[in-house]
Amino acid sequence: MTSRQDLANAIRALSMDGVQKAKSGHPGAPMGMADIAEVLWRKFLKHNPSNPNWFNRDRFVLSNGHGSMLLYSLLHLSGYDLSIDDLKNFRQMGSKTPGHPEYGYAPGVETTTGPLGQGISNAVGMAIAEKNLASTFNTSKTNVIDHFTYVFLGDGCLMEGISHEACSLAGTLGLGKLIAFWDDNGISIDGEVEGWFSDDTVKRFESYGWQVIAGVDGHNSIEIENAINQARNNLSQPTLICCKTLIGFGSPNKAGTHDCHGAPLGEEEIKATKQNLNWQFGEFEIPAEIYKEWNAEATGEIKEQEWNKTLESYSQENKSLYAELKRRINNELPSQWNSTFDEWVRQLQNNPANIASRKASQNSIEFIAKMLPELTGGSADLAPSNLTTWSKSKALAKNDFSGNYIHYGVREFGMTAIINGISLHGGLIPFGATFLMFMEYARNALRMAALMKIQNIEVYTHDSIGLGEDGPTHQPIEQMANLRQTPNLVMWRPCDQVETAISWKNAIENKTNPTALIFSRQNLKQQNRNLNQLDNIAKGGYVLTDSDKTDLIIIATGSEVGLAVEASISLKSKGVNTRVVSMPSTNVFDSQSREYKDSVLLPNVKNRLAIEAGISDFWMKYVGLDGDVIGMNSFGESAPANKLFEHFGFTVENVVEVALNMIERNKK
Amino acid sequence: MTSRQDLANAIRALSMDGVQKAKSGHPGAPMGMADIAEVLWRKFLKHNPSNPNWFNRDRFVLSNGHGSMLLYSLLHLSGYDLSIDDLKNFRQMGSKTPGHPEYGYAPGVETTTGPLGQGISNAVGMAIAEKNLASTFNTSKTNVIDHFTYVFLGDGCLMEGISHEACSLAGTLGLGKLIAFWDDNGISIDGEVEGWFSDDTVKRFESYGWQVIAGVDGHNSIEIENAINQARNNLSQPTLICCKTLIGFGSPNKAGTHDCHGAPLGEEEIKATKQNLNWQFGEFEIPAEIYKEWNAEATGEIKEQEWNKTLESYSQENKSLYAELKRRINNELPSQWNSTFDEWVRQLQNNPANIASRKASQNSIEFIAKMLPELTGGSADLAPSNLTTWSKSKALAKNDFSGNYIHYGVREFGMTAIINGISLHGGLIPFGATFLMFMEYARNALRMAALMKIQNIEVYTHDSIGLGEDGPTHQPIEQMANLRQTPNLVMWRPCDQVETAISWKNAIENKTNPTALIFSRQNLKQQNRNLNQLDNIAKGGYVLTDSDKTDLIIIATGSEVGLAVEASISLKSKGVNTRVVSMPSTNVFDSQSREYKDSVLLPNVKNRLAIEAGISDFWMKYVGLDGDVIGMNSFGESAPANKLFEHFGFTVENVVEVALNMIERNKK
Repeated sequence: MTSRQDLANAIRALSMDGVQKAKSGHPGAPMGMADIAEVLWRKFLKHNPSNPNWFNRDRFVLSNGHGSMLLYSLLHLSGYDLSIDDLKNFRQMGSKTPGHPEYGYAPGVETTTGPLGQGISNAVGMAIAEKNLASTFNTSKTNVIDHFTYVFLGDGCLMEGISHEACSLAGTLGLGKLIAFWDDNGISIDGEVEGWFSDDTVKRFESYGWQVIAGVDGHNSIEIENAINQARNNLSQPTLICCKTLIGFGSPNKAGTHDCHGAPLGEEEIKATKQNLNWQFGEFEIPAEIYKEWNAEATGEIKEQEWNKTLESYSQENKSLYAELKRRINNELPSQWNSTFDEWVRQLQNNPANIASRKASQNSIEFIAKMLPELTGGSADLAPSNLTTWSKSKALAKNDFSGNYIHYGVREFGMTAIINGISLHGGLIPFGATFLMFMEYARNALRMAALMKIQNIEVYTHDSIGLGEDGPTHQPIEQMANLRQTPNLVMWRPCDQVETAISWKNAIENKTNPTALIFSRQNLKQQNRNLNQLDNIAKGGYVLTDSDKTDLIIIATGSEVGLAVEASISLKSKGVNTRVVSMPSTNVFDSQSREYKDSVLLPNVKNRLAIEAGISDFWMKYVGLDGDVIGMNSFGESAPANKLFEHFGFTVENVVEVALNMIERNKK
Repeated sequence: MTSRQDLANAIRALSMDGVQKAKSGHPGAPMGMADIAEVLWRKFLKHNPSNPNWFNRDRFVLSNGHGSMLLYSLLHLSGYDLSIDDLKNFRQMGSKTPGHPEYGYAPGVETTTGPLGQGISNAVGMAIAEKNLASTFNTSKTNVIDHFTYVFLGDGCLMEGISHEACSLAGTLGLGKLIAFWDDNGISIDGEVEGWFSDDTVKRFESYGWQVIAGVDGHNSIEIENAINQARNNLSQPTLICCKTLIGFGSPNKAGTHDCHGAPLGEEEIKATKQNLNWQFGEFEIPAEIYKEWNAEATGEIKEQEWNKTLESYSQENKSLYAELKRRINNELPSQWNSTFDEWVRQLQNNPANIASRKASQNSIEFIAKMLPELTGGSADLAPSNLTTWSKSKALAKNDFSGNYIHYGVREFGMTAIINGISLHGGLIPFGATFLMFMEYARNALRMAALMKIQNIEVYTHDSIGLGEDGPTHQPIEQMANLRQTPNLVMWRPCDQVETAISWKNAIENKTNPTALIFSRQNLKQQNRNLNQLDNIAKGGYVLTDSDKTDLIIIATGSEVGLAVEASISLKSKGVNTRVVSMPSTNVFDSQSREYKDSVLLPNVKNRLAIEAGISDFWMKYVGLDGDVIGMNSFGESAPANKLFEHFGFTVENVVEVALNMIERNKK
């Protein structure tokens, strides 16, 4: 008869073997958490290995992502489409089993983890999504949305600041279906953690309003099972289960030390460990009876079928709710989306307004929210500055989760990783907001969205020295270059309410890239456009004003487009025929055909000037060594915005002077 | 007779007037914390307004930096060189009083604050520096280093994740002379915090091992005074004093609401407030008797004189310790520094080693630490990977602070902001370390070092896809571009042990810029150099190999320099005369004379190819529109390093092909 210990040892064996074969990886955590995983996955986890996308499945997140072999072992043993050969290819080029769990590579990986603290924050987002969707779609009779979100995390996650942000908010919001397991093994890379991590974690999580189950023996199945039951029975608080474990459990010479954290155990030690665990099987060998005990395909199929039946009866009793749920699950926009939006954009073009793009953004949000109830806004305590609320926005609160707005508090990083979790869960279109400068606090979570190719819309206002008096700590310089240079990320910096609306439309429609929307604090003048130009905004860059011939191309974005147009008029009077290119999204422009790009940035025109109140360097890729840039080459200062623009050379006079000097230089 | 309330009202009046005149700013926090500030500054703070740099002064940090008028008022009233006209120029171009307190602008501003949570973290660094220097220099008879570090902080700081990182570590290290005041006013920008911030903060800080003094009435001078005494009497734990305050205290219509948080009160409300507070003076008017009560010049002078006397007798009894302390305070390097280092570099050049630059970095650290006992290392739990320990490194521990190494735990952001604090304190040369990717978690603190123009050395290892199997979550792509594009920041990416040593020398000597040192995980081949080339490394970029004529310039850094040299040999055999430029620091190279730069990157050579395993875009500023870049244009993958370099085109064959294609193209 197969014991629970045997079942857990299957994980240990596969993890040791996988890491050994790859000659790199982290065996310690999988071996330490194997018993917990066995109880959770075999006794509680609601999932269907044959359909990893079943909407009502429990979510499982491995926040200590370096323990990836734990997850791969679980997926393989449970019957997901992840073969033993996939496990043998751990950490190899093109495999489904990269060094850290990567979303989209192996089925059943709910999110990419590795950067510590972000997995637990993603999980908070998933639990928020579940609670919100349940509140929207469940009826007194039927719970169509009803699942738990489970997370494994280690000391590293708990030390990271983001864990404070996400877990504090989880407590405030009373996310009762979030259950986290702390792998309390006392070891991190530098050694025994007591010299640098002496928090009373129980007390800490109690201070956040969590239920904390302390002192669970992470190698005692009964204790683990009892703890999970207690956690599931408390639906008003998230639960932290503190599991005392031995890192590298089973390894006679390395267990309990950091030697087994991040390196293969070695052939000899693996042999000794298998002997010690009474595991009598070869490398990557799992006996049939153990596979059988682990396999969750049949039970998973039954669970999903049950849900399908529930959904069927729900659909008959709640036709419109069901239609809406289906649309949300399928990630579809309403059929009238395009036509309605396009019509509105034409109206905006025909009714010029000189407003800040953050205000134009608020108008866009107002417009979009009418069509998309799944729009779920939020800001890191800057709602009145980011202008992210709308007439029908309503905050989520612990006891009323029917809203569509999240007051994230001053928690930029937590917010952004939570949004990743909401997005991964599905059913909502979340956006967050902060000042562009404080994107930096959150940056790696936005990068994770880019890496995962998921939607994460961030509203970043106060985009330059144009924010004025708050000064250089708040004035972005190099931040836009940083966003644009991030693979898979799309950044927009619109110049008026029309480009703002297009940028929002693009962000909503783009399901495979995160989008950073960059808005001004100060008012911007609306630009004239014909219908063709209106269409071309979506190409990221287009000719805004032109001459019969082109002596000079000025490229500008956002608040500097108005300046470029004014300067081009002045240059015309000096005999310089100038084309002004508005380039709200360099990322989108770069993805256009060579033909289109050359039609905008005429290759034979060497006189090119870029104007943007951001770091100059970035624009060299468009203007070349013969061109010039009017940008920022230092930090800003604290002063009224108009004084700053003048001080840093963003004036018609300076643009004209720089342009004329360049033209003169290039004649030589 | 002047009451304490009158003295506090002077702060309120100046803060209201300053914000009103600037038409922007934050009056609420200064008005709410005025009573606390009055007690702290007039009863306890050890400082000398005539010498803001007195080494043994107490440090005061306003972590809620938006309340800058509080600090400016205190400095002005206490007698610092900050006139009433300076206060009237609040938030104006070129003033000493920018919107947030900026280090180096007004005397007495100990650090730049505004980005929330970083001030408290800087303060943790200052308290670490004090405790370490005290441990090094104090004798059984004399405490030459003996001061407190006080911090004001608000709800925003407490919500930010970095506060968790820094305060957790402060508890572990037992920083008994760190005293923080929480402005518990229940208000943040979005409104009343209870909907998004419901932590039991008392319990939270107790979980970190702090002494917490709860329930202090922030408008009751006696309670505040008692609390500070209790805090100062506990030298084994940092203390959090929880002060219940009313934001905008005194304003009859706006106190207690977020209306007074971030906007002028308005003329009418100021009038009503002054009446309510019984403050009968005009705009920016402070009566003489109030100035007199506040002025700390005489008492400050006496305190410093007493210390000077202590130092005098100390110097006679501890000659060598005193000499060392003086050198440290004056931030001087030992006299033999240059000659010893240069000799060592020549030895390195003459004794080639093919080692990873992270290993070369460890060798540099070992060498430097022998000469500089003030070198204070650390890593965010990656010591064995970053290779940041050395033969004589010794960890700081709560009960033994005589060491020189800090195990920061998995706390990148906290670490980097703490290092800013250590650096600002003086007496130590701190460095931190993490993987280059996780610089992102910490990035805004490094930016703050750049903004403040202070030394902050960060060792960032695992610098590219060359780290291999850990995969794209850990493989930097756009991170180096981001660092290089940050004003005032100096980044180095050396190609071998010789460039590594030079980069470390540069980092140690550079007291006005933070330095990011980028190192490889994998081994790098050492390059040949003559003495002239050896000298030119410090210029950031130089000709490493050359031909009689130059058909092509290849620019490379770090691990790609070896590839560039190999490819140049292959190109030579195909008749292409190639110059290879090694450019370990683009920032330093950019600061060279036009003449030098043109001698390296010959302006008439249009065939330019940059090679770096980082985002391609960055290099366009050197290669121009005619040139090309072999770089990264996507995220990496999980696989062994050699497979990845091959996959992404970092091979001799590909370099040759791209170069030949470019030359062909440019002939047309």
